[in-house]
This record gives sequence, structure tokens and C-alpha cells, in this order.
Amino acid sequence: RVNEMNGSGNLMDFLDEPIPDVGMYEDFHTIDWLREKSRDTDRHRKITSRSKESIWEFVKSLLDAWSGWVVMLLIGLLSGTLAGVIDLAVDWMTDLKEGVCLFAFWYSHEQCCWTSNETTFADRDKCPQWQKWAELMTGHTESAGAYVLNYFLYVLWALFFSFLAVSLVRVFAPYACGSGIPEIKTILSGFIIRGYLGKWTLLVKTVTLVLVVSSGLSLGKEGPLVHVACCCGNLFCSLFSKYSKNEGKRREVLSAAAAAGVSVAFGAPIGGVLFSLEEVSYYFPLKTLWRSFFAALVAAFTLRSINPFGNNRLVLFYVEYHTPWYMAELVPFILLGVFGGLWGTLFIRGNIAWCRRRKMTRLGRYPVLEVIAVTGITAILAFPNPYTRRSTSQLISELFNDCGALESSQLCDYINNPNMSRPEDDIPDRPAGPGVYSALWQLALALIFKMVITIFTFGMKIPSGLFIPSMAVGAIAGRIMGIAVEQMAYHHHDWIIFKNWCRPGADCVTPGLYAMVGAAACLGGVTRMTVSLVVIMFELTGGLEYIVPLMAAAVTSKWVADAFGKESIYEAHIRLNGYPYLDQDEFTHRTLATDVMRPRRNEPPLAVLTQDSTTVEDVETLIKETDYNGFPVVVSRESERLIGFVQRRDLTLAIRNARQKQDGVVSSSVVYFTEEPPCLAASHPQPLKLRRILNLSPFTVTDHTPMETVVDIFRKLGLRQCLVTRSGRLLGIITKKDVLRHMAQMTNQDPESIMFN
Amino acid sequence: RVNEMNGSGNLMDFLDEPIPDVGMYEDFHTIDWLREKSRDTDRHRKITSRSKESIWEFVKSLLDAWSGWVVMLLIGLLSGTLAGVIDLAVDWMTDLKEGVCLFAFWYSHEQCCWTSNETTFADRDKCPQWQKWAELMTGHTESAGAYVLNYFLYVLWALFFSFLAVSLVRVFAPYACGSGIPEIKTILSGFIIRGYLGKWTLLVKTVTLVLVVSSGLSLGKEGPLVHVACCCGNLFCSLFSKYSKNEGKRREVLSAAAAAGVSVAFGAPIGGVLFSLEEVSYYFPLKTLWRSFFAALVAAFTLRSINPFGNNRLVLFYVEYHTPWYMAELVPFILLGVFGGLWGTLFIRGNIAWCRRRKMTRLGRYPVLEVIAVTGITAILAFPNPYTRRSTSQLISELFNDCGALESSQLCDYINNPNMSRPEDDIPDRPAGPGVYSALWQLALALIFKMVITIFTFGMKIPSGLFIPSMAVGAIAGRIMGIAVEQMAYHHHDWIIFKNWCRPGADCVTPGLYAMVGAAACLGGVTRMTVSLVVIMFELTGGLEYIVPLMAAAVTSKWVADAFGKESIYEAHIRLNGYPYLDQDEFTHRTLATDVMRPRRNEPPLAVLTQDSTTVEDVETLIKETDYNGFPVVVSRESERLIGFVQRRDLTLAIRNARQKQDGVVSSSVVYFTEEPPCLAASHPQPLKLRRILNLSPFTVTDHTPMETVVDIFRKLGLRQCLVTRSGRLLGIITKKDVLRHMAQMTNQDPESIMFN
Repeated sequence: RVNEMNGSGNLMDFLDEPIPDVGMYEDFHTIDWLREKSRDTDRHRKITSRSKESIWEFVKSLLDAWSGWVVMLLIGLLSGTLAGVIDLAVDWMTDLKEGVCLFAFWYSHEQCCWTSNETTFADRDKCPQWQKWAELMTGHTESAGAYVLNYFLYVLWALFFSFLAVSLVRVFAPYACGSGIPEIKTILSGFIIRGYLGKWTLLVKTVTLVLVVSSGLSLGKEGPLVHVACCCGNLFCSLFSKYSKNEGKRREVLSAAAAAGVSVAFGAPIGGVLFSLEEVSYYFPLKTLWRSFFAALVAAFTLRSINPFGNNRLVLFYVEYHTPWYMAELVPFILLGVFGGLWGTLFIRGNIAWCRRRKMTRLGRYPVLEVIAVTGITAILAFPNPYTRRSTSQLISELFNDCGALESSQLCDYINNPNMSRPEDDIPDRPAGPGVYSALWQLALALIFKMVITIFTFGMKIPSGLFIPSMAVGAIAGRIMGIAVEQMAYHHHDWIIFKNWCRPGADCVTPGLYAMVGAAACLGGVTRMTVSLVVIMFELTGGLEYIVPLMAAAVTSKWVADAFGKESIYEAHIRLNGYPYLDQDEFTHRTLATDVMRPRRNEPPLAVLTQDSTTVEDVETLIKETDYNGFPVVVSRESERLIGFVQRRDLTLAIRNARQKQDGVVSSSVVYFTEEPPCLAASHPQPLKLRRILNLSPFTVTDHTPMETVVDIFRKLGLRQCLVTRSGRLLGIITKKDVLRHMAQMTNQDPESIMFN
Repeated sequence: RVNEMNGSGNLMDFLDEPIPDVGMYEDFHTIDWLREKSRDTDRHRKITSRSKESIWEFVKSLLDAWSGWVVMLLIGLLSGTLAGVIDLAVDWMTDLKEGVCLFAFWYSHEQCCWTSNETTFADRDKCPQWQKWAELMTGHTESAGAYVLNYFLYVLWALFFSFLAVSLVRVFAPYACGSGIPEIKTILSGFIIRGYLGKWTLLVKTVTLVLVVSSGLSLGKEGPLVHVACCCGNLFCSLFSKYSKNEGKRREVLSAAAAAGVSVAFGAPIGGVLFSLEEVSYYFPLKTLWRSFFAALVAAFTLRSINPFGNNRLVLFYVEYHTPWYMAELVPFILLGVFGGLWGTLFIRGNIAWCRRRKMTRLGRYPVLEVIAVTGITAILAFPNPYTRRSTSQLISELFNDCGALESSQLCDYINNPNMSRPEDDIPDRPAGPGVYSALWQLALALIFKMVITIFTFGMKIPSGLFIPSMAVGAIAGRIMGIAVEQMAYHHHDWIIFKNWCRPGADCVTPGLYAMVGAAACLGGVTRMTVSLVVIMFELTGGLEYIVPLMAAAVTSKWVADAFGKESIYEAHIRLNGYPYLDQDEFTHRTLATDVMRPRRNEPPLAVLTQDSTTVEDVETLIKETDYNGFPVVVSRESERLIGFVQRRDLTLAIRNARQKQDGVVSSSVVYFTEEPPCLAASHPQPLKLRRILNLSPFTVTDHTPMETVVDIFRKLGLRQCLVTRSGRLLGIITKKDVLRHMAQMTNQDPESIMFN
């Protein structure tokens, strides 16, 4: 196969005529960062020198300098708008599973009752205009038949939504499935996946995201929103040749778009930027930091002006707690961290095992059936339990909330002491009422259900994020633990640990905070985010007060999860799919470049060209017989002294070009890579000068270079290949894939050596 | 001179006996990042393999793995404590210039009156226990004589404090002067400045910082606090051999310490981490991000538990605004941004010109006199104006504050409309009273005074930060503009621009917000911080509401300032002092490695060693006659094929060692760098085998490599030198200094080419 486009970067100017698809890469190939950078510098240099020629050129150079900001603005506006539209649509369609607003069917339950005049403050979610399906059809509300009818329609809607979603994905945009983050990580590291960030993917992912979230499956919209934002970024890149023609610059824009995606997913712009920096991006210069921040802010403000949650808040889960936390509470917080770490490990192992099985067995051939089956099971199991019936984000929101005096939730059914009258916000610890106990049972069941079903849901052929399900698992576990600690404190004021901070009548335990800490721990265990996780949570609460509990849980969860395996769920999926992703982990093995380079000992010698003794026919044979992406050029086969590297594609194009247009170039013509070919007698065929396609600065290392240095060089400079020499002699070549293969091999051989890193 | 230690990194194990100061660098030399990393990997590998041998070794390996976190904890605790102590001491000593607390002289004015029973809420800052000096000495309070006496004593105290400070710096720790950030940037980029982060510097800087801030000079404590935190980091590094013996690892700790420093300076942990990432650090892996965050949080919480401001707040300037901002206000905000950018340019140019003059002329020889003179002028001019008499941070705090109903400041002397009764927080726009107008005049004078004196203050031989003075300039300008806009809106409700958002009786303009925006703009103009600036400001206000004004001002200020020159004040000082700092700006010139490498055309050929034909005497002559830090080793002088690089110091040590201990090594012995020296006849002198000190993986590029790639490689891999080859033949060498010299040369030649970057 003819692979991958060329490399001689800034030598392109010398070409007599530009070759059509110069600077493009083939699908599923890796870009050369150094070359992209050098091409951008050339372009920039050209614009700068031209800008002095005329006013018009000067204006053009100004426009060019500003195009980065314009792209950021557009990304922010579009991704904010899309996030708002998705939120509104999900709200409406989630409620559609249960009932309909009589006077305006496009209103969600909440909107319907807010608009109604007959709604009272105490019964905010009840109004005559909102009718459940059974009520609408049969007129009954409370009978067993109505329950069964509602149940049936709930499942039916869910199946309909998810069937529609999986069909759309199958037919129009197969890349729209999954969370997208593993692929975006890979793309940002320099891999080309054509169409992954295309217009169709954007459209289909947005629509199907609404459908699958509404269908009640155990998945979230956060990861896919990052994908959607990156699609927006890619879309706007095509407006400016600065970005559309340079894969390196394009990736800077995509990094910023990822930040905008998280920013709208959580309403956390700073957290979004840090997420992009910590989790997603590969090359993140300071200029990108600043632009990402801009895009993230624009996106957040666009979302806020759409105001989908109707509360003028930017954030998904706004919480406000009234009591501080106490030192002794660090023990349950750390326990939640351990739980989060264990859940992360369990989830990653389980999910990867299931995904591998799907890949290997016949299961993978029936994606639609699989989605239908999982949706059916989810809906059937979810309906009877009020905590799983509603949308997962509503559940998390309720679990995070503190029980104020006006809270109507079952979780806040405490027994009030009528003798005490206090200001509204200062509620002492109280014994739990029957509502709380039944809620605890339901929550425990919901926890088991969520834990199991999420493992099977993530990875199906529909858009699916796992931030929300992971947070839900943690929030449920945290709330249960919070109530347990609270009741323990109430009933055992005299215990030594409660004595100091939990006097009778004091409000000392906030179960909502436990839910939040649990959510952070579980999310951390699954994604191994650290700083960005804490910052996102900080932006949700808006106070530094609760950072210590969150950090304690996040650190514990990361350590526990890392003890069982260093990979986050995204890295595990990258490895499962075999993407060429060079992760940031340190390589600590004692191998040398000579152990990794090809050819190996028993392999045929390296395919090289000589600078002045290879004929056109030889080159054509070499191209036909091998599938290497490029060939080193040496002085002569004897001396083996390297002079450059030539890309396969350039070679093919140049020879085809010469054979068509240059008279006298025949199979026996000699190919010259030297500066000036010797004057030949007339009897010799016309020589072919190819120095202009030769990359004269190939990257070399010596055979004694430690592999850890080689890995570092590949990672930091974004190389595709590197030649190995010894005392000026060419010995072999190391490609990015050789490096990845070697790393995988070393890790499997002795995995403990990277444990304490 | 014998320079710089060695290089063969992981080959050290093969040495028969370790050479004493292996792994140390000489003062004022650059470290080799790749080598430091490789040494750390070796150490880690050794510990990991040993940890399987015994329980004790396993425990040791665990301790080693945790030592990073322990260091962070210690840094956080110590820098938080120091910051708290400095705050308390500054508070007390600033007030000492004006008066004393009778019943406890170690109380500041505020503490004195808080403790007193006779203080009323309306007159919070007046109590009989606090007496001004004149009152204490003469018994009069209001007479002209008392004023003169107070004035005299104020100046005297200021002179005493600053004299003490400059003497301490001169005698005990010359490195304690300045803000320290330019030097820390340079150190973090890999330069060695011994003693810069030493114990004496820590001690003297902490003490003198208190003195100079109390003396009322126009300087702040924020920059020096970063230096103090880095000293703490360096101190704790010496406890763990992992950090004390590895200059690369040590710099990771110092990056985190810088974050902790900013965290305690502003009470902004996230802003601190971003400041370290954006402004200070050079190599910032994700592991460091996480640890920096930890250190910053610990430091912030330590400071809060000391509670020096007495308000339980973490932040230096806590503000809360009650009214939103309006779109039309973006115009004044952007004007403030322009002002900030202009001020940044003016300050940088003025300050650098003055510092250069100080360096070049006799002025530099009298640092004590200079400090005394500037302090005298500052104190004499500052006393009459109430806005310059108090400490700069109090001034900023007052300017940031909104005029609530209870504010007693002269700035809040508005004429109330007695007919309107409204809730406390909702105060409509009112006409300004005489107090406001006199305050405006005083502020205008203070602005001019601050602008001029700061230019002369920064760079004297005392600790001096410029965050606070820059913010003060911006805050004054902002407040003046805020009041102007407010009064314009009040008097011209009918103007088209005010019509929409400023109806009569509405509270529509917050002058405090303008002060804050102005402060951000000026700080941005001087330091060119962007994201970290906005995040620090966000942490001060705690709300996303005001991020758009802040960003608009910060962006404008950066653009305006960049149009006059890309350098921040720190970079300007780095260049003034000639530190070898490779900045992150892109290099966009079209030069090749061959243009930069030495030897140049008319220079003598490169000093090389051959692998098997140089005698000991030749080597010794070469070492004597040249001062290069290392020598390439080639196969033979004819073929010029590179086989490795040997460090000068290694060579010297190895030959001295061999002459002392190895029999038969004489001046005519041949030095062998080959794997196996040939068997020689007995008549030949004993050969000297030196392969073990040869670095077999020197970094090479070809002569055709574009310099922009070479700069990128130096920057990203942290090289010290790089060899230049052509088709396997050694041509020359490029050192970090050659790169820096070339970059400076190119920038001076055509500075416009990097304008639209």
C-alpha cells in the first residue's frame, strides 16, 4: 500500500510545481509534529514578509493573527448552544416517558407545572396540566392497572428512543458511538482518524445523545459533549486555512474545544481547561492554555444565557452547605476514597473484559439487539425504584443536596422535635424517619443496579459518557454512608469520637457532602483525574471549604485504583482498540535503541537507497516489494553513511511525475540525491535529480542510546521515526509503532516495576 | 578552568570506583535534563529491584515513593507559617510608624482597638489605648506640632526599617534582594545558582521582607514570598537524597514550591498552581501539577489556621459585589485594559533603563545610600496623603470594596437621599459628596506618586515584589474611572447609553469592580500573566460573574503591552542580567544548524579526540589549551566519524586517577575509547582504557536541520550541547549559549517578525 505523505517540510518551496495533496496524511497514520510546526512557521514567515508589501496584505496578516481567537469564539458559541439544546431536549424527552403536558406537549414536567397557576409551593411537582400516560388514557391515577400501563409505556418509550439512536448511529455515523474521549486523546497525540470529528458525526452524536440520555440508560452526556465540542472545533478549523491545512495547529484548536466541552458539561470553565490539560491533550503550549480558557468561558456563558436549568446557575449540580466539616470525618471520606478506587478497578476490569468479549465473539455482530436488550433490562429494573426511574443527573442533584427545612424529598424525612424552634437554615441532627429508612433500602438496590448495568452499557454502539453513572454510584454510596454517620452521631453523642464536634442539638453531619465526596472518589477511580476533578468539584460548590475532603477522597481513590493497575478507563480503551498512543508514563526499563530497532538480527538488511547509484527501476522494485513508509538514503552501500530520509509517497509521486514529463527518464536512469549530479556521457540515460524531496535533517540516535531517552524524544518531539547509527554508520530504524510495541512488551513482562512511580 | 561534571549517566555503574563529586554541577552552569532523568530512573530501578530482597528494603522503597508527598507537606506547612508570621509582623510594624498600643506594644492598631472595651462599632479605628507618637510624647493630638512630630517619626521609622533591611541583605545574604522570580525562572530552566535558595537567603529574606514592607516603600511581598517558598522547597530537598542529589527532581519540587508561594501570597491555591505553570516553570509534568496543588492547598490552609487577617478568610482582598455588570461597561473596562498595557510598557522600559543605569554608572556602588534616599523620599511624600500613608494592601482593599451602608471610608461619602428607605444592601446611585471629590484629588496624586516611585524602587538591593504596587496603580486608576462613570450615570440618566441599564434610583455602577479590573489590567501589563491572573482574581471574588470584565481587561492589556515589546518584566530582568534562559517564544527565522555551529569558517577546527590514537600527553595539552566543557571522540581524524562525547571533567579526573593508581600509564600511553584495545608489544607503554567515561549517545543533528527545530529540541529535551554532522561526519558543535546568542542576534536584527505571534 502507498502510505502517508512526505516530510521534507520547508523544502517544499523549492519544488518546481506543488504536488496536489502535499501536507495531507493518509487515514490511520501518525503526523509528524516537528514538520507541521516547521510548515506553520514557513507560512507565518511568508505572511509576515508579504504584509509589508501592501495594505491589503497587512490586513490579511492581521486577520490571520486573529483567526485563532475567532475560532475559539465560534467554538464557544456553538458548543454552548448545542449543550443548552441538548439539556432542554433531554429534560422534555425524559419526562415524556412518564407523561405529557396537556396545554403544551413540548413542556417538560417542571416547565408545565411552573407555568400552571394551580401549582402550590409545597406541591411543586404536581399540577393538573401534567398528566401521566395512564391518567390521560384511562382517567385513573392510582390503580394497579394504571401503574402497569405507565410501566409498559415507560419501557416502550425507552426502547423506542434507544432503537432510534442505535439505528441512526449505525446508518449515518458509526463514529458517533462511545464517549469519544479515548479517540480524541489519540487524535490529539497526532493520529489521523478521518471523519471522526466530521459534520455527520457532530449532527448524529448530538441527536442520538439526546435520545440515549432520555431513554434512561445508565450513561451520561459529559464525555460525548467533549466529542461534540471537538467536532465543532474541527468544523470551524475548515474555515481557516491556517488550521485546516496544518494538522498540528488543528490539534491546538481541538485541545481548546475539549476544554469548552467539559466547561459546558459541568459549568466549570477552569476545570474544563485543566481537564483538557491533564487528561486529554498531548501538546499544550501556553498559547493554547489561554485560548482554551477563552473558549471555555464563552461556552459557559452561552450556556448560561440559554439557561436550560432555569436557575440562572452555570453549574449542573449547584450545592450550598451550611455546616463545616470536622477532622474526624476524614475517616469516612477516606473510606469513600477506598470505595471509589475499588469501584474504578472493578469497573475498568469488568468493562474491558465485556468489551473484549463483544469484540471477540458473535455478540459484536448484533449491536442493535444488544442496545435493545440492555435498554429493556434497564427500563424494566429502573421503573419500580423511584431513585432509578428519574434521570441520573436529577438523582445526583438530590443526593448532593442538604436537607433544608423546605426539602420535600423522601431522603429528608427526619423526625422533627416540635419543642425546638430555630432559624430555617440551622437544623440540628435529628433521628431518621421511616422515609429515610425506606430511601436507604431503595438506594442500596439502586447502587447495585447502577454498578452492574453501567459495566454493560459503556461501550455499546451509542453515545455514552461515564462521568454521570460513576458519579451516581459514588453519590449513592456516599449518601448512605453520610446518613449512617449522621444517625450514629445522633444516637451516640457520648462516644469519644463524637464528643468533641457533635454535641446534642448541633447540626454536625451533612450527608450531602458525603455524597459529593463519594462522587468525586468514584469518578477519580474510573478516570484517574486528579487536579481537574477537584477543581470541577470546587467550581460546583464555589468554596474552598470542602476541598480538603474532596482531595483526601480523590487521592485515596487514585492510589487504591493505581495499586491494581495504572490505566484509566480511557487508556484501557485506547489499548483495547490498539490505537498508537504514547502515554505520559515514565519508561523505566534498561533497554537500548539497538534492542528495539529494525532490522532485527535474523531479518533481512534495512532497505536503503544510495545517493548516486540506484536506478529508477531499483527504486520501483523496492517500492513494490516493501511497505515501509520511507527509506534512508546513504552515501554508498559500503560506507553506509546516512545523508537523509525520503518518504515513500514523495518518491512514488516524483518518479511518476518525472516519467510523464521529463524526457529521457527511463528505467535505467540513475536517481541522484547529491547536490550536483556528475556530467554524464550522452550514451547514458538522463539522470533523475531527487534532492528536493530528500529530508536532509532526519532524526538520529546512536545504538547505545537508552530506550527511556528514545521514548522521551518520541513523546516530546512527536516523531514518527528515528534512525539509528553507530559511529556515523546507519544501522536501523525505530518507528513509533516499534516504540509502542516494545513498551507493551516490557510492561507485560514485569508489570511491578512501574508500581511505585 | 575546569568546568562542569560529566555526563555518561547510566554508565557510572560500570566504573570501578565512584569518583567523589559525580553528579554535581559547577556554579553558574546548566544542567543536562536528559541525564538527570536517566540518573533518577537508574536510582529508581535500583531501589525497585532491591525492594524484593528484604522487608527493610521494601519499606525503604515505600518511603522513597512517598518522600515527594512528604516534601510537599513540609513545604506547605513552612511556607504557610512564614507567610502568616510575615503578615502579622508587617501589620504590627506598619502601625508602629504611627503609634503604639499602650497596654501591649506588640498589638497592631486594629488588634489594640478590637481588644479594647471602649471601641464602638461606628469608630472602629479609634480607641484610647492606641496612641499616636505625638500624643504619647506631648499629650496633644491635633496641633500643628503634633502633626510635625508624627511626620518626623514616621519618616524616621521608615528610614530605620529600610536601613536595617538593606544592611542585613548586604552583610548576610546578597541573594535576598529583588523579587527573586527572574532568578527562579532561570533556575527552574536548569541553571545552577548556588546559595540562591539557601538557608541564609531564606532567613534574611523573611526578616528583611517584613522590614521593607513595613517601611512603606512602594513594593509588595508577593514575589519575595515565592522566593521564600522556593527556599523552603530547597531546604526540604536536602532531607531526601532523591531530591538533593538530582538537580532535575529538585526542580520539580521547586515548581511546586513556587505554587505554594503564590497560594499564600493571595490565598489562591488554584491560581498559584497556574502561575507556576504559566509564568515560572520550565518542565512541568502532570505529577508535578498534582503535587503543586497539594502543596498550595496545605500552604493555604496553614495560613488560614494562623488567620493573620483576623477574618477567617483565605484571601488577601475579599470582596463581594451586589450588582451585576452591564454590557456597556465593557467600554470603560477595555479602556482600563489599555491603561494597564501602557503602564506595563512604561514601567518595564523605565525600570529597565534605570536598572541599566544603576549597573553601568557609579550609582550601583552605593546601594545603602540609594535605599535610604528612596525611602526618605517615599516617606516624606507619602505621609501627607492618607491614601499613600497607609500600607498599600490596605489601600487596595479599600479601593476594591463596594460602598455599603456601614462603610466609613471617605470614598463612600455620598449624599444620601433621606426620602428613600431601602434595604441595606441595595443602595441606589447617589451624588458624590465633598469627601468623594477630595478623595479623588488625593487618589490622583497618589497615582502619580506610585507610578513614579515604583519604577525606582523595584530592583534596589532589598526584597521587593511588584504585584502589590502594580495592582495599586491599577486599582487607583480604576476607582477614579468607576466614580467618574457612576457620577456620569447619575447626572445623565437620560443619555442613550445609560437609558437601558441605569434608571434613576437603581444601583448600576460598582466603582469597586472598576478598581479590581484596573488592578488586573496593570498586573497583566507588567507580568503578562493571563490565565493565572484571571484565576487569582476569580478566587478573590469567588464568582464567575466578574470573569468577563476581568478577562476583557487582561486580554486588552496583554495585547497593548505586547505591541510595544513581548517581554514581561521578569524576562526583561533575565535579559538584563544575562541569565541563560531559553524562553518559550517561537523562533521563526530561517537559519540552519550550520549557521550557528562552531567552529565558524575562520576559526580553528573543532577540538576532537580520536578513539585509538591520542596519547595521554595530547589529551593533557588539549585540556590545558582549551576551555571547552567536553570533547567529541571520533574514529580517526581522517574519517571524522563520531563515536561519542567525553566531558572535560571526567577526562581530567580519569587521567589523574590513572596516573596515580595505574602502573605503566605515562605521557606517551595511548588513550583508547574502543571496546577492546589491541594487544600491544611489551615495548609499548601500557594503554589507558577510557570507554567507561565516554557518553555513547551524544545528541546529533545534521547541518541542514533548521534552527527552529534545533531550538525546539534544546527547549524540550533540556540539552546542554548538540553535535552537528553531515553524512556521518562530525562538523561542529552547538551549545545552549550558542543558541541563546543566535536568538538574541536574530531578534535584534528584525524584531517585527515576532510581533503577530
